Amino acid sequence: MSDNLRSRPLRMAMIGGGPGSGIGEAHRRGARLDGQITLVSGAFSSTPEKSRQQGEALYLPPDRVHGDWRELIRDEMRRPPNERADFFSIVTPNHLHYEPTREALLAGFHVVMDKPMTMTAEEARDLERLAREKGRVLVLTHTYVGYPMVRLARDLIRQGRLGKIRKIHAEYFSGWLSSPVERQNNKQASWRTDPALAGAGCLGDIGTHAAILAEMVTGLRMEEVAAEVTTFVDGRGNDDDFAMLVRWEGGARGTICASEVAIGEENDISIRVYGDKASLTWSHADHEHLVVRYPDRPKESWSKGWEYVAAASDAA
Amino acid sequence: MSDNLRSRPLRMAMIGGGPGSGIGEAHRRGARLDGQITLVSGAFSSTPEKSRQQGEALYLPPDRVHGDWRELIRDEMRRPPNERADFFSIVTPNHLHYEPTREALLAGFHVVMDKPMTMTAEEARDLERLAREKGRVLVLTHTYVGYPMVRLARDLIRQGRLGKIRKIHAEYFSGWLSSPVERQNNKQASWRTDPALAGAGCLGDIGTHAAILAEMVTGLRMEEVAAEVTTFVDGRGNDDDFAMLVRWEGGARGTICASEVAIGEENDISIRVYGDKASLTWSHADHEHLVVRYPDRPKESWSKGWEYVAAASDAA
Amino acid sequence: MSDNLRSRPLRMAMIGGGPGSGIGEAHRRGARLDGQITLVSGAFSSTPEKSRQQGEALYLPPDRVHGDWRELIRDEMRRPPNERADFFSIVTPNHLHYEPTREALLAGFHVVMDKPMTMTAEEARDLERLAREKGRVLVLTHTYVGYPMVRLARDLIRQGRLGKIRKIHAEYFSGWLSSPVERQNNKQASWRTDPALAGAGCLGDIGTHAAILAEMVTGLRMEEVAAEVTTFVDGRGNDDDFAMLVRWEGGARGTICASEVAIGEENDISIRVYGDKASLTWSHADHEHLVVRYPDRPKESWSKGWEYVAAASDAA
Amino acid sequence: MSDNLRSRPLRMAMIGGGPGSGIGEAHRRGARLDGQITLVSGAFSSTPEKSRQQGEALYLPPDRVHGDWRELIRDEMRRPPNERADFFSIVTPNHLHYEPTREALLAGFHVVMDKPMTMTAEEARDLERLAREKGRVLVLTHTYVGYPMVRLARDLIRQGRLGKIRKIHAEYFSGWLSSPVERQNNKQASWRTDPALAGAGCLGDIGTHAAILAEMVTGLRMEEVAAEVTTFVDGRGNDDDFAMLVRWEGGARGTICASEVAIGEENDISIRVYGDKASLTWSHADHEHLVVRYPDRPKESWSKGWEYVAAASDAA
Repeated sequence: MSDNLRSRPLRMAMIGGGPGSGIGEAHRRGARLDGQITLVSGAFSSTPEKSRQQGEALYLPPDRVHGDWRELIRDEMRRPPNERADFFSIVTPNHLHYEPTREALLAGFHVVMDKPMTMTAEEARDLERLAREKGRVLVLTHTYVGYPMVRLARDLIRQGRLGKIRKIHAEYFSGWLSSPVERQNNKQASWRTDPALAGAGCLGDIGTHAAILAEMVTGLRMEEVAAEVTTFVDGRGNDDDFAMLVRWEGGARGTICASEVAIGEENDISIRVYGDKASLTWSHADHEHLVVRYPDRPKESWSKGWEYVAAASDAA
Repeated sequence: MSDNLRSRPLRMAMIGGGPGSGIGEAHRRGARLDGQITLVSGAFSSTPEKSRQQGEALYLPPDRVHGDWRELIRDEMRRPPNERADFFSIVTPNHLHYEPTREALLAGFHVVMDKPMTMTAEEARDLERLAREKGRVLVLTHTYVGYPMVRLARDLIRQGRLGKIRKIHAEYFSGWLSSPVERQNNKQASWRTDPALAGAGCLGDIGTHAAILAEMVTGLRMEEVAAEVTTFVDGRGNDDDFAMLVRWEGGARGTICASEVAIGEENDISIRVYGDKASLTWSHADHEHLVVRYPDRPKESWSKGWEYVAAASDAA
Repeated sequence: MSDNLRSRPLRMAMIGGGPGSGIGEAHRRGARLDGQITLVSGAFSSTPEKSRQQGEALYLPPDRVHGDWRELIRDEMRRPPNERADFFSIVTPNHLHYEPTREALLAGFHVVMDKPMTMTAEEARDLERLAREKGRVLVLTHTYVGYPMVRLARDLIRQGRLGKIRKIHAEYFSGWLSSPVERQNNKQASWRTDPALAGAGCLGDIGTHAAILAEMVTGLRMEEVAAEVTTFVDGRGNDDDFAMLVRWEGGARGTICASEVAIGEENDISIRVYGDKASLTWSHADHEHLVVRYPDRPKESWSKGWEYVAAASDAA
Repeated sequence: MSDNLRSRPLRMAMIGGGPGSGIGEAHRRGARLDGQITLVSGAFSSTPEKSRQQGEALYLPPDRVHGDWRELIRDEMRRPPNERADFFSIVTPNHLHYEPTREALLAGFHVVMDKPMTMTAEEARDLERLAREKGRVLVLTHTYVGYPMVRLARDLIRQGRLGKIRKIHAEYFSGWLSSPVERQNNKQASWRTDPALAGAGCLGDIGTHAAILAEMVTGLRMEEVAAEVTTFVDGRGNDDDFAMLVRWEGGARGTICASEVAIGEENDISIRVYGDKASLTWSHADHEHLVVRYPDRPKESWSKGWEYVAAASDAA
């Protein structure tokens, strides 16, 4: 039996996520997974016909599908309470994160937005302040920190199993931009490699995942960095690779590396943390396991779903 | 954009799948995954209060939730076409597969039923005949044959990449019944180890998965078997382990082994097929990859979702 | 510093192991590994010119190299004590194991012989009796039981860590005979597939390794077997594949499988043992690790050479 | 049959490698492996009694064992040609690499010396010049570049299989100095953490292995580096960890990282190279395989010893 915290599923309105979108479908699939969220409406594309097509593919009633996200927000505000969306999901290209989120918050909705948050730090702080003022929940989706074995990693470190943290190595390697696919009609690649639409390239798109993973698992903050940021594919507007030396609070050291030109890699995000008592490694390619290693006893592989995992987690 | 083959999601009614059920939630999660199916009603338990609780947890309207599966079928028949379930999902313990499926087919519904099909081969043949007569779809869910890399394995073999098949080794090892948990209030274990409720034990519960996997991947049928079927836990009513020598049509040889007392294993189903030109291996523990091996070139690991996989599949 | 148990390295004479031999070089490499054994003489081939070539390649003095193994034994008997071989290494094809071993024992030498021991059980018992009468050491080399992590597996089982043994699955898969290489001038394949020279095929050549591994690790003996023994390659004189159901003393059950036609496999011998408290797996492909699994705590990977391994072994 | 390039095995004299030495035994074991080298003499320790013990353990005649390496060189010079060492193996702590190597070269011997070469670059250049003048071979042992699959990696890159090299990530992680073992009577740790005896710490001891591996495999040279070099264990004289950003000739970028405080790691050296056509990875933990990955076909795992490996190598 699913945990049932309320009397009905939450209603979600979506901005972005039209035909060819990657993240829109990811948010929808995530929403469907446990039956606690229902998609009720959307402005999936600024091209009305594309938005309509997407709404139809999702079996939405035509009057809940819009070509203009401002119109969607207005429509939701007008709906009676038993129809109205509880929250908005913002899954537009990066340059279109700030405005819709701001408007939805102003209209009184909670918001779940995809990362990176905004094009500037100032915009991000503005949204944070606004959400606080309005008493609304503002969620930023860093999907990898939600894996059960990542949560376990955080708990084991909190409990002191690794001792004092010395070294942190995080990375996110993929190869999907190893050739100039942005010039071959790949819509995803087009906006993601365009500084005006995406802001940062590899650094902002996937480097942020590695960084937040490291912060979340260790509970530490970065203090200083030195980085080499590179664009390997000729003519590309954004960076597609970086390597970074990091100094963490408390004296830990390490690297964060990410790449979109690492041929053969998929979404290979991983983290290794070394303390003065033990170390741990987690990799997305084997996300159901967490490996813990000691100087004086066998290496352990913790496996998702077993009772001993629940017993060791902070929630226990 | 999801493929949208119809104008609305299919409506599913469920029999079984109450609190503590494993397979009921698996069917529901599978149904939610791509948004093409909606659960509309259920008789989740023969204890009305439990069925009601489960329906509430699933946000179903109270009038679509029943304590008696016959009543659920009658109610669905009475519903107007725009509310009525399109098909039934049967996720009861094994001894309760036959009757509800039969009644649902007789009432004109399609049926998706969990394996093993029925308690006797005669009942199974009866259902197959009935579905044909009524022109209804009758689906038996062998979940592992649906994995993309299992489908690829079948396609590569069909295309002759392995040559003539010589050897097939399939197995399904788990350890969840390694101690007498059926006497420790584990409801799943209780009915699954009871011959009257489950029919066969390890052989029927998970051995069937390994067997069907081998048949589906190779396209061959078993001709003769010699097996050792064992009950390792004292006092258990059903078998909890077996090993089987198999002769396949066309001269292939091999083994099928399964166990519920293999401590440390989870749902570790795997298959290895050896031909006279190449071999392949697939394992549920690494289900996104298919390994193909040759006598005269590097071993290959095919990875889910890549374009070359689609290009090599029969559907391409 | 190597352990130094004596005042000089042991002197080894070799029968067999000429050009193209596989096992002869394996024995020589093993002998060289720790500097405790020196090869002093040999009858490497019954073709005198080939034996001479091999001796030269090994930098042996010409007068210690013979074309006739009987002559070698006689020559060693005549040598003064400070030159004479301490023991013989017998690395001939199987049909030539018995006689040279017998003669070397009768002449008063210790003998290390490759497996399988002899062509008949009677011959084997004769050699065992003779060695006892003569007070000589007679060693049969089952190389895989010497791996440190295999020794550890045996010790952990002896100490009761797995509880009562329920299931044993051992296998040895290779693919080197997947095509009729014995008809393509492969000398190794020629005698190994000839019943007159090799006795058994896959069963005797590599199946014995899997069987002895299982016996050594568990300390149990087989009581009953049912096997399917197959020759997949047309025209081959010996079996090249088998699968066997085994009943072990004390109630354990399991399988032993081996193949020489499993394309893509090398010398992939492995064992899995399941008890009522824990299980373990070891594989030659990852021979430096031993994996131990429990019902209620993380899986362990024990790694060769660490202090905790020494501490847990019976020799500690 | 071993390749036999000469009429007798080469004779090796060793300086260093006494009781408790790690590298001395590694050189001896390597020398024994194929029977082409015989150890004939040594100055294993400057403590005569320890040198004597070591010589005895190696079954050397007492008159070939010395407490003073200068005496050993003199003695070898005096020996008749049929007894005299062909070359010296220098396996002393780092500060004692230069002088013995210099003297052995001056005396006319070839020299195999362990890395790092000397305490200063000037000394290294001096030895290189001297070897050239004397016409002697001077070998520096970077053991990891000798692995067959590392050689294959180099050949595949040379042949253009990866295209233009973009990214290189090499690392060498171990954990043996994660606690202050140099203060717990560990002789190896004592000299290796002492700047006066070892020169550099982690950087020189194992970082050099990762660097040379990257250079050898790619055929590229480093142009610029930015590094964070750290000593994690309090009171330690040498660095025990570093991370380095590297710019390679031709525009490649990447990192080299090494650590001696990475608990749970052994001698885990690995390299990943990404080109614009393909990528490859090799890891010492799985040294018999080389993985090659492409944008448009299955990942390959090349396996040591197969014929297709020989056919693809430059030596073929």
